[in-house]
Amino acid sequence: MKKRAEGRRVSDLGEDALIEKLVAKLVASKRNQDVVAGPGDDCAVMKSARSGFYELLKTDCVVEGVHFLQGTRAEQVGRKAICRAVSDIAAMGGVPRFATVTIALGTEHSVAEVEAWYAGMAGAAQQFNVEIVGGETSSLPEKRGAVISVSMTGEVEKENCVFRSGARMGDAIAVTGRLGNAFASERHLHFTPRLKESRWMVSESKNCRPSSMMDLSDGLSKDLPRLLRVDGWGYQIDPERIPLNEDADLDGAIKDGEDYELLMTFPSLDEAEWKVAFPETPLTVIGEVVRETSEPLDPGGYEHFRR
Amino acid sequence: MKKRAEGRRVSDLGEDALIEKLVAKLVASKRNQDVVAGPGDDCAVMKSARSGFYELLKTDCVVEGVHFLQGTRAEQVGRKAICRAVSDIAAMGGVPRFATVTIALGTEHSVAEVEAWYAGMAGAAQQFNVEIVGGETSSLPEKRGAVISVSMTGEVEKENCVFRSGARMGDAIAVTGRLGNAFASERHLHFTPRLKESRWMVSESKNCRPSSMMDLSDGLSKDLPRLLRVDGWGYQIDPERIPLNEDADLDGAIKDGEDYELLMTFPSLDEAEWKVAFPETPLTVIGEVVRETSEPLDPGGYEHFRR
Repeated sequence: MKKRAEGRRVSDLGEDALIEKLVAKLVASKRNQDVVAGPGDDCAVMKSARSGFYELLKTDCVVEGVHFLQGTRAEQVGRKAICRAVSDIAAMGGVPRFATVTIALGTEHSVAEVEAWYAGMAGAAQQFNVEIVGGETSSLPEKRGAVISVSMTGEVEKENCVFRSGARMGDAIAVTGRLGNAFASERHLHFTPRLKESRWMVSESKNCRPSSMMDLSDGLSKDLPRLLRVDGWGYQIDPERIPLNEDADLDGAIKDGEDYELLMTFPSLDEAEWKVAFPETPLTVIGEVVRETSEPLDPGGYEHFRR
Repeated sequence: MKKRAEGRRVSDLGEDALIEKLVAKLVASKRNQDVVAGPGDDCAVMKSARSGFYELLKTDCVVEGVHFLQGTRAEQVGRKAICRAVSDIAAMGGVPRFATVTIALGTEHSVAEVEAWYAGMAGAAQQFNVEIVGGETSSLPEKRGAVISVSMTGEVEKENCVFRSGARMGDAIAVTGRLGNAFASERHLHFTPRLKESRWMVSESKNCRPSSMMDLSDGLSKDLPRLLRVDGWGYQIDPERIPLNEDADLDGAIKDGEDYELLMTFPSLDEAEWKVAFPETPLTVIGEVVRETSEPLDPGGYEHFRR
């Protein structure tokens, strides 16, 4: 049996199971009192020297052939690399601060393409007030291929930090914006991370304060169970209420991923207050936190390693 | 001419020129008063909320086929990924704190191998008191291949922070340990970052305080000019004084790279004081900071992208 387990490929196991195994190894080494939330949330959360604040830390990557295709406009690729990390900082209720970028690429990549990635990153960093403070480049052994890894720090007032844990029985489940068909429509390349909306909810709103939050990157059917798993709850979703993009169908809204909208639970929610603050961005209640999921969404969201 | 420039591949340009181009793009977007040192030093240095301290931030990666070979013992690969970043924190005089890890890998990698990488990372993290607080995994479009990107935060007392800038005319140039043949001997897999030595120099020593410092990763002939370029100085090296590993020759000590020793300049240096503190680790003066380099070391150190 042992031998068989050792022979398994990552493609047999899938991303969630792989991450669970790796997290187990990391948690085993955990002993630092300064860590508030380690692996498993959108960002790592640490105590800060700044009184009343937490530090946030996030690492992420975009890979050619997985997160973008050869031929994708390079500036948009760079923009996406930064915006994905900003979206994770937003998903904690935080504000991004500094970023570092590691690029590994095949020797035949054009210099102009790499420069355009950086231009896209610099533009997005400026838009969200992030400073890119360092980077590293490495070659890949192949002629083609590219991995852009972004690491980002941020901060959040302790009382405004929203974790994946925190949902309670009966909480409303809601999403920002509209879902589905992000990859084919190329919305995944020019989405705006919900930083403004998140900050408003955690620090300004009277009655739009989420009890738990994450960003939607792998599709509702995969991400929603991740959100509720932390507290051991289930969900009851009304599919008819899921807000669809104009070019998307329900199946896509549930499975496609790459939406980078916020998925939240709310003990109470004043939809009118939201509408005044963000008249053009929907916030839609799509269901409720329940003890056990009786009708699971079809789990066909994007999964790394499964082919 | 424009078209020709756009058609250039990264392999035509080489790593130093590529980084210079990218840094130019980043610096153009720089405007944050909290950044003390941005791209170009071993770590980014930022003002800290902790009074009297700077924050450090480093990103780095190891790539299969470049920094380690297929078949390399996986725990050592993980160890190297962490130790490279620790070495960069040490090169600022700092102390490492938190790390995040992004892994992109081909679908046919074995789960056991990935788990062993993490075990090696967890072990090295524990040794140097680093907490791994988060991670991300992604697939690569190929069956094989692996990129492990590590991002690390650290901190250093303001007065103890040592930059690449700071060397003065007449300063002694010195290195820790011995150089050469690190890759073939596999020392690149089990080196110990010079964290202890660095901290002693910046915070305890009476007369072993470097004016500038970096870690040697690409070979003396490539790294030394990088160190002195910042202040516009040259070097006069006495090749006979370069400390060689038992299995290395002078050519290798100058060109091989992957030594992860500290390269420093000193206004004054009490070698006897060092010897008492570290009786088993040599600190060797190999030359002097001069106005202009008249005999450059053969620039054959490892260069990414050049083949």
